[in-house]
Amino acid sequence: MDFTVYLAGQIHDNWRSELKENAKERGLSFQFVGPQENHELSDKIGDEILGEQPGKLYRDEAASAINNFRTEVLMNKADFVIALFGESYKQWNTAMDAATAIALKKPTIIIRPESLIHPLKELSNKANVTVETTSQALDVLAYLFE
Amino acid sequence: MDFTVYLAGQIHDNWRSELKENAKERGLSFQFVGPQENHELSDKIGDEILGEQPGKLYRDEAASAINNFRTEVLMNKADFVIALFGESYKQWNTAMDAATAIALKKPTIIIRPESLIHPLKELSNKANVTVETTSQALDVLAYLFE
Amino acid sequence: MDFTVYLAGQIHDNWRSELKENAKERGLSFQFVGPQENHELSDKIGDEILGEQPGKLYRDEAASAINNFRTEVLMNKADFVIALFGESYKQWNTAMDAATAIALKKPTIIIRPESLIHPLKELSNKANVTVETTSQALDVLAYLFE
Amino acid sequence: MDFTVYLAGQIHDNWRSELKENAKERGLSFQFVGPQENHELSDKIGDEILGEQPGKLYRDEAASAINNFRTEVLMNKADFVIALFGESYKQWNTAMDAATAIALKKPTIIIRPESLIHPLKELSNKANVTVETTSQALDVLAYLFE
Amino acid sequence: MDFTVYLAGQIHDNWRSELKENAKERGLSFQFVGPQENHELSDKIGDEILGEQPGKLYRDEAASAINNFRTEVLMNKADFVIALFGESYKQWNTAMDAATAIALKKPTIIIRPESLIHPLKELSNKANVTVETTSQALDVLAYLFE
Amino acid sequence: MDFTVYLAGQIHDNWRSELKENAKERGLSFQFVGPQENHELSDKIGDEILGEQPGKLYRDEAASAINNFRTEVLMNKADFVIALFGESYKQWNTAMDAATAIALKKPTIIIRPESLIHPLKELSNKANVTVETTSQALDVLAYLFE
Amino acid sequence: MDFTVYLAGQIHDNWRSELKENAKERGLSFQFVGPQENHELSDKIGDEILGEQPGKLYRDEAASAINNFRTEVLMNKADFVIALFGESYKQWNTAMDAATAIALKKPTIIIRPESLIHPLKELSNKANVTVETTSQALDVLAYLFE
Amino acid sequence: MDFTVYLAGQIHDNWRSELKENAKERGLSFQFVGPQENHELSDKIGDEILGEQPGKLYRDEAASAINNFRTEVLMNKADFVIALFGESYKQWNTAMDAATAIALKKPTIIIRPESLIHPLKELSNKANVTVETTSQALDVLAYLFE
Repeated sequence: MDFTVYLAGQIHDNWRSELKENAKERGLSFQFVGPQENHELSDKIGDEILGEQPGKLYRDEAASAINNFRTEVLMNKADFVIALFGESYKQWNTAMDAATAIALKKPTIIIRPESLIHPLKELSNKANVTVETTSQALDVLAYLFE
Repeated sequence: MDFTVYLAGQIHDNWRSELKENAKERGLSFQFVGPQENHELSDKIGDEILGEQPGKLYRDEAASAINNFRTEVLMNKADFVIALFGESYKQWNTAMDAATAIALKKPTIIIRPESLIHPLKELSNKANVTVETTSQALDVLAYLFE
Repeated sequence: MDFTVYLAGQIHDNWRSELKENAKERGLSFQFVGPQENHELSDKIGDEILGEQPGKLYRDEAASAINNFRTEVLMNKADFVIALFGESYKQWNTAMDAATAIALKKPTIIIRPESLIHPLKELSNKANVTVETTSQALDVLAYLFE
Repeated sequence: MDFTVYLAGQIHDNWRSELKENAKERGLSFQFVGPQENHELSDKIGDEILGEQPGKLYRDEAASAINNFRTEVLMNKADFVIALFGESYKQWNTAMDAATAIALKKPTIIIRPESLIHPLKELSNKANVTVETTSQALDVLAYLFE
Repeated sequence: MDFTVYLAGQIHDNWRSELKENAKERGLSFQFVGPQENHELSDKIGDEILGEQPGKLYRDEAASAINNFRTEVLMNKADFVIALFGESYKQWNTAMDAATAIALKKPTIIIRPESLIHPLKELSNKANVTVETTSQALDVLAYLFE
Repeated sequence: MDFTVYLAGQIHDNWRSELKENAKERGLSFQFVGPQENHELSDKIGDEILGEQPGKLYRDEAASAINNFRTEVLMNKADFVIALFGESYKQWNTAMDAATAIALKKPTIIIRPESLIHPLKELSNKANVTVETTSQALDVLAYLFE
Repeated sequence: MDFTVYLAGQIHDNWRSELKENAKERGLSFQFVGPQENHELSDKIGDEILGEQPGKLYRDEAASAINNFRTEVLMNKADFVIALFGESYKQWNTAMDAATAIALKKPTIIIRPESLIHPLKELSNKANVTVETTSQALDVLAYLFE
Repeated sequence: MDFTVYLAGQIHDNWRSELKENAKERGLSFQFVGPQENHELSDKIGDEILGEQPGKLYRDEAASAINNFRTEVLMNKADFVIALFGESYKQWNTAMDAATAIALKKPTIIIRPESLIHPLKELSNKANVTVETTSQALDVLAYLFE
């Protein structure tokens, strides 16, 4: 049985490649999809495709339209979603992706450090499972096959 | 024609009462609903109803369960949602409420300061309208009757 | 703002009238609906309307068809659901009603004694809020207006 | 034509392996999925992944979150559901799984002994087919190919 | 609590006015809606509004478009549906209306004479309740208030 | 691109095998599914699996439960539906299957003789295409590839 | 029984006030809603609320966001939709509104002159009824009450 | 990961084959589907299958029924939609297809020349991304894999 997993969350560090690496080591086979991880490209993709936009607002709007297109197409393919929140960045789009997945009845796992318990409490309550590390998230995934 | 509006967002200042006051002054009649605005009560409602919980994680989980119940009941009644993001607080639950409303096909207006254009760009792109002030949000509401 | 509440659960004692009484005393105004509380009538309603059935299986099937019709009509009207489980009776239809409400995105409160924590854990996890007494359930309802 | 079947119900005996064995003997090829059948692991999976919880309520809540994640992921994959109720255990989560499947328009077969006709009458009425033995359930499955 | 009921079925006799009359006598207050009961008007409404059509096929197509518009608007308003089948007419549109209501999760009661048990068995199995007389259907409606 | 087609309609003649044969001759490759075509088996399948039922009503109810299970499972797999109505039989279950497919947004083709234009006019108006022969239905299917 | 009607279509002439006037004369009582009919205001509403935009593309994007918000809020309230197409203007947003209504299962009437039969044929085929004049549309509305 | 793309829009020039060609050159592998591109066949397919119709209205109605059947079947298979609007033709059916896709939560890209910014502004605002050339649309598609 094959599963596709959307990895929502920050693109500022390499948590996705670590998670994929660990999944491989544990013999867990998933199709992982997610947002554009090249941060610079993600921010300028609107200008790159549509031409230079008249200011930051429009540049962000153009980029986010294309990033949201990508997210929707790939999340539609996903059997479930893992959303990671880190301490360093306000990731409202991660909360948006997780809440959208939940509203669409896609099972959702949240990863967040202990320090973010309070600000993420409503989202944690709505998600299926909340863990603190990518390793724990993989434990939950491994449990699908046990 | 009557409309019910869910006012999502921070409960740390009095933006809701200002918005309601201004609506009244402009002769705009809406039924406004929203989260518990007594911050302290919102945080301790789980302990108050269910008894003291064993630590902060469980206290937050118990409170958010009851807060989410309230939000779901009231948002189901809403014809559309206004979600306000301010500079001072990480409001992931606001992003969650806005994304949930959008996924449920409820029209959504976002209010956010210029400084938050970048971190809120994906959510802004998904919402119907993004403005910077509650006054502009009321302009959009007034336009329903013009 | 008016709310309609479906009261799912056992019909062997008078928990519904107690809850309604207490709501009244606390000044909480709701439209309460629920299953047929006359147990004998609930069991024989199929025979009463359709004529005597050929054995217990058919008698139960005929009665449950009409009871389910009633439940569906009234639950469709409900803004949220309260489902009570007591110690004395296997109430699979209560679990069915709660799970149906949750799947239809109706907010749901479960009332169950401490002794039933374990057998109801999956359903509690899916519901919005789980409490132990009708009084606590009313606390949650009162919170909608605070 | 391939079918995936979710086998909901008690994990206290080996009815699933018997059903799978019999399916094989009859030349019926299905992909069977279901809950964690190692009862001890099912109960402690929360503590195992998230660390020891502060008491039975929290231990059960943590475990059921992960079990519900598993169930949702696998049931989403299923073309239909078979839910078995036995005489020995209160299986409210089985009723929850069956009712959820029905609400999501997944065809559902219930297996229950004659002694449970009365307490399961409402759920039987909502399900597509109710039988008494796993062998009869396989007869229904075989009928898909006849 | 107010209910709107769509009365699907043949328009060749006065079963609807009888049912309404009996409901009144029993003190049951419902808002009844249904198809155009003037048979001749129902058949020629397309020609009347759109002008004479080139042949019977087109006349029927034009009329049914307007009749279906009416049915959809009114059925959307209905809390539940009663569909009557009589012995004299092939009422495929009644089966269509009942099946549509069921697919849209509107509770449905079927009225049919004993002679039609066999040809209506699949639809009866999908509906909530099947009875033989309008009086029995009113018994089921009365049960909503008991 | 592969398509699965549900062939709803009467099981009294061999229109399905003719249609499949003609599809093959024209080089059109589809996965065809449909109801049990052995009429006798279809009528007695309830008794065969569940044991002898107490009378015709119960025999029909038991059989239709299993036949509806089959139809739901297979129609869920279908990309679109072809529903044939002939002159000889009241096929309310065919109307039910077509209306269900339409309500579930599955494209639907109706085949009916000219003599049935009038009684099927509402259903024809709701379906995507109505034709008179299986050969014309295959023309529509062939058009998917042109 | 009250109905709310969304009047989609061009805002360049006074067809809406004519239709409303005629409805009144015929004693037909509906709640009519629709887009902003002040064309100039409709085009500049984005600039008016959000400030001057950097060019025509952005001015149109800002205006359409607010116009779409209005349309969604009001169409959600509508029981059905009337969409008028005239000869003088390309009204893609009218086609968008009609198609959205149809996808959301809101019954839809199209008004278009004979000259537009060909370019609107696919949309006409999807709508419930297509007529040529507002007077004919009112005939269809009147038929709801006959 | 495989994607199916529905190419909505005018069939008067060869923009689809150009887009497919360019996708191939860039190493982008998609399954492209779309409407009948033989314009003459598209217009007469109703008459061809159903026989000559009594006038242009009926000819168009018959053809569009079959064209809409094709579109629905193929769009249901699509992961996302690209809709192209050109300057020469009123393509209301393209707007219909795009709006339907959006209402069904299928991600949508619009291609339109600068000259059509104003008349397409509401649809552009609803779509995920709007570009001016097929090459830019392919840039967005390529971004799915980057």
